[in-house]
Amino acid sequence: MTEKEICRLLAERRYRELKTSFGEMNEVDLADLLEQLPEKEMVMAFRLIGKEEAAETFSYMEPRQQQILVEALTERELKEVLDEMFLDDAADVLEEMPANVVERILSTTDAETRRQLNQLLSYPEDSVGSIMTVEYVDLKPEMTVKEALTKIRRVGIDSETIYTCYVIRNKKLLGIVTAKSLMISDEAAVIGDLMETNIIKVTTYDDQEEAAKLVRRYGLIALPVVDREGCMVGIVTVDDAMDVMQDENTEDMALMAAIQPNESSYFETSVLRHARSRIPWLLVLMFSATFTGMIITKYETAFAAIPLLVSFIPMIMDTSGNCGSQSATLVICGMAVDEIRLRDVFKVIWKELRVALVVSSTLAVANGLRILIMYHDVRLALLIGLTLVCTVTLAELIGCMLPMLAKRCRLDPAIMASPLITTCVDAAAIAIYFFIATRLFSL
Amino acid sequence: MTEKEICRLLAERRYRELKTSFGEMNEVDLADLLEQLPEKEMVMAFRLIGKEEAAETFSYMEPRQQQILVEALTERELKEVLDEMFLDDAADVLEEMPANVVERILSTTDAETRRQLNQLLSYPEDSVGSIMTVEYVDLKPEMTVKEALTKIRRVGIDSETIYTCYVIRNKKLLGIVTAKSLMISDEAAVIGDLMETNIIKVTTYDDQEEAAKLVRRYGLIALPVVDREGCMVGIVTVDDAMDVMQDENTEDMALMAAIQPNESSYFETSVLRHARSRIPWLLVLMFSATFTGMIITKYETAFAAIPLLVSFIPMIMDTSGNCGSQSATLVICGMAVDEIRLRDVFKVIWKELRVALVVSSTLAVANGLRILIMYHDVRLALLIGLTLVCTVTLAELIGCMLPMLAKRCRLDPAIMASPLITTCVDAAAIAIYFFIATRLFSL
Repeated sequence: MTEKEICRLLAERRYRELKTSFGEMNEVDLADLLEQLPEKEMVMAFRLIGKEEAAETFSYMEPRQQQILVEALTERELKEVLDEMFLDDAADVLEEMPANVVERILSTTDAETRRQLNQLLSYPEDSVGSIMTVEYVDLKPEMTVKEALTKIRRVGIDSETIYTCYVIRNKKLLGIVTAKSLMISDEAAVIGDLMETNIIKVTTYDDQEEAAKLVRRYGLIALPVVDREGCMVGIVTVDDAMDVMQDENTEDMALMAAIQPNESSYFETSVLRHARSRIPWLLVLMFSATFTGMIITKYETAFAAIPLLVSFIPMIMDTSGNCGSQSATLVICGMAVDEIRLRDVFKVIWKELRVALVVSSTLAVANGLRILIMYHDVRLALLIGLTLVCTVTLAELIGCMLPMLAKRCRLDPAIMASPLITTCVDAAAIAIYFFIATRLFSL
Repeated sequence: MTEKEICRLLAERRYRELKTSFGEMNEVDLADLLEQLPEKEMVMAFRLIGKEEAAETFSYMEPRQQQILVEALTERELKEVLDEMFLDDAADVLEEMPANVVERILSTTDAETRRQLNQLLSYPEDSVGSIMTVEYVDLKPEMTVKEALTKIRRVGIDSETIYTCYVIRNKKLLGIVTAKSLMISDEAAVIGDLMETNIIKVTTYDDQEEAAKLVRRYGLIALPVVDREGCMVGIVTVDDAMDVMQDENTEDMALMAAIQPNESSYFETSVLRHARSRIPWLLVLMFSATFTGMIITKYETAFAAIPLLVSFIPMIMDTSGNCGSQSATLVICGMAVDEIRLRDVFKVIWKELRVALVVSSTLAVANGLRILIMYHDVRLALLIGLTLVCTVTLAELIGCMLPMLAKRCRLDPAIMASPLITTCVDAAAIAIYFFIATRLFSL
């Protein structure tokens, strides 16, 4: 079904038909489709979605569309949608809404839900608390498998996952039982005997990235979250962990391209907002690059004597910048998956040093030969070859060390990627180039 | 427990103690720990791991360590490990081993397993077939919930997931039943009535990235895989999807830094292999940069007259390169999550054009003012300002278009990121700079 068809069916008041086809669609696709509709039609179409699917569809929509819906729906409709939503999704919705809309939403919920929502909203952005869900299945250690299955049957519909159940006494997490072990165990077995007590868990104030990494590392479906006192407060499910992974990756890529990360999607971000997230680093890098320019002015007499020297500046700058960003990227990726740790710094430097020697001598020979053939000038070939060996080696060393230094200072290593390294390396490369040139040509 | 403690306990022959502590550890951590041990100790320690955990621990180890174990274990030990492993993990192991080791492993398995392994190994790298698992729970539509639960209890232990069951008749996938719906439904209900028939699936020859995207988009625990005839052949589980996501992200970052991606980890890759994956692009980019140099030589008289002109080259090159890589990165990320599609090309260009105007004029004013203050030269300020407006705008347009062009040509958009764009943009920026300079200063 396309958005045009929906508009046509709406105009022809063929509501029943629409209702049926909405019922057959996946909520994710339905949300995508509704977002394409004009405002009025979107609200009309949303009202035709079945009660159970409406909440889920709503939670998959973009904040802008959610706000339009919140403002258009009646008190009762809104309450129905919110009651069906998982609390973590509801908290995500609230986070993106203006204050008056939040008030309107909160006024429709009961006191307990309001308290839980406020709690979820109080966790810092990017913390585990901000992505966890509070709807999970809790069991008691003295329950039998049969009792546990009965409980799951009763509360299962309202839990985000029933596949990992948490054994709790006095709010403390004692162990974990998977639905798999419940299903293949004897009905009379006792939960306390079945449960796995070697628990992988996080706390509410841990970084969400930490939670995503644990979920991936151990292949979990859900990860329990405890508060500072060790009381169980929620879970992080694998689908949320995947979203965190994707967001963190996008954020890293943005940082690596010297862009301030931005939670909204490309088209949802306004032109001014886009500009604002790109300008700061550009300004910093632009003014840093003038430093390289200042080095060049020091060698005015050199390139006045041999103007050809100027024409190699772009090649020297680009090549060393590229080498620096190559090793920086490898180190950033290695640290992102915890393969490279801070204590490996000398191992990394030693590796990069050897790689740099192979890379730089290959480049030096290739370019030296080209210059010999084109200009028949041994000294020029030697100058470029020597410069490449020195600058490439320096670039790879700076490239691998800066991200580790950033991590050491508790900054995101990704900000040390290509643009910043390029600027640092450029200045050094130009200085080396002219230093060697003045010596070789006795300028 | 640390690797030193293990070595000590091994030397003191306190095997029982080791066995107990291994039993309490998570297999992922255990694999990590064993990898730190010297060869002989690793083999000894591995033999102390319980039968059930040994296979899983083995599957988490690095190929090099796996090979050492394969060569050290007896026929019988090897068979025990392999029998316990999921077939997709076993296929992954085989893929990394030299031919003689593969032969040794295959000789221990029975004919049917061998056939399945060979089938799994025949799928192209990066295809869904290469990551899928063939152990899943299949149900018949006429079964009751009770019969289904009985079947799960019987085959559950050998299935990678029991949480999504597949309803199959004549090998064709009819529908999906989740363990959740089985657990909360009446025992007499019939599977055919419970199953969800709106199925999200992939085929064996689809790209593995496609499968990972679907798992994330729809929040699935497992995704069914069918062959070209529509017969069900396997599933992709969410933990494998997460690994694919991580690998693809690392690959994209490598490509964006002009590195040929490489499956092995940073330290496992040899120095020569590292160099080989970095040199090709460096050579291409280095020789392309000489093109920029050739443009500069054309303007020798210009910078002979005003040597100061040369000192702005790094700033102009870096700034336009950075702007180009910013918009390229945003477009690459947008395409990676399917937010930006090829048909949005004009929407993207229009957006980038407006962003470019804001960004470039800000940079132009900032740098123009700096030059006015430092050099008291209106014409120079005007030159730099004008050049920045033109080059930044051009860079952002090239930056957003090249990745889309790459996608259009069915290449990975990530290869069009910073280094390649920098090189393209540099030449244009330098040409624009000197063109404006010669006009303004009538050189």
